[in-house]
Amino acid sequence: MKQGIVLFGHGSRNPAWAEPFHLLRSEIEKQQPDAQVELGFLELMEPSFADAIDRLAASGANDVVVVPVFISAGSHVREDLPKLTEAAMASHPGLRVRVVPSLGEAPEMLAAMARYALQAAG
Amino acid sequence: MKQGIVLFGHGSRNPAWAEPFHLLRSEIEKQQPDAQVELGFLELMEPSFADAIDRLAASGANDVVVVPVFISAGSHVREDLPKLTEAAMASHPGLRVRVVPSLGEAPEMLAAMARYALQAAG
Repeated sequence: MKQGIVLFGHGSRNPAWAEPFHLLRSEIEKQQPDAQVELGFLELMEPSFADAIDRLAASGANDVVVVPVFISAGSHVREDLPKLTEAAMASHPGLRVRVVPSLGEAPEMLAAMARYALQAAG
Repeated sequence: MKQGIVLFGHGSRNPAWAEPFHLLRSEIEKQQPDAQVELGFLELMEPSFADAIDRLAASGANDVVVVPVFISAGSHVREDLPKLTEAAMASHPGLRVRVVPSLGEAPEMLAAMARYALQAAG
């Protein structure tokens, strides 16, 4: 099994908006140098989610974990993303695509955000 | 000095969108039971940022830390928020209002997000 990670974000017309996504990818690669990480945006920005999946599949990944880099999992995560993952699996038979809770839904992330807020206030 | 924390978010027409903000406030209060935390939204949702400041000031806070609960600090954080904080300080003489880096700009939060992604992929 060869794993890949997609950092799924909304996208923006402003290229600078993607900066935290690039930083997050670098941080993941720092923590685990052999991690395969691609950015995949919903709209307004490249690479698209489909591009991210294509890249990971081309590099031999067969198990993809999608991390929605959203505070709130609104319709983009609850409605658009399932369609994107279905399309990705249809395009790549044998590829497993799993979506994990978005950042604002994961208890460990909420705990980390709370620590950050208290420390910043400190 | 009495401190308050404002969790600053964009807001949405969908009330469920605010859920992570409520969870984050609860988590902060769990980690530090005497913390004074208010949500303050830019638009589409109550309470507004000004409401949050008014509530904290009314409870006696004189040092307010604003945590932008945004992955990317776009124009809402870079342009709208400074105007809101200026207006807040103008309305409440003697109140100090500080804005800390948004979640996607803070190295410790990027490290936590990376750990989450790798653990989820694990």
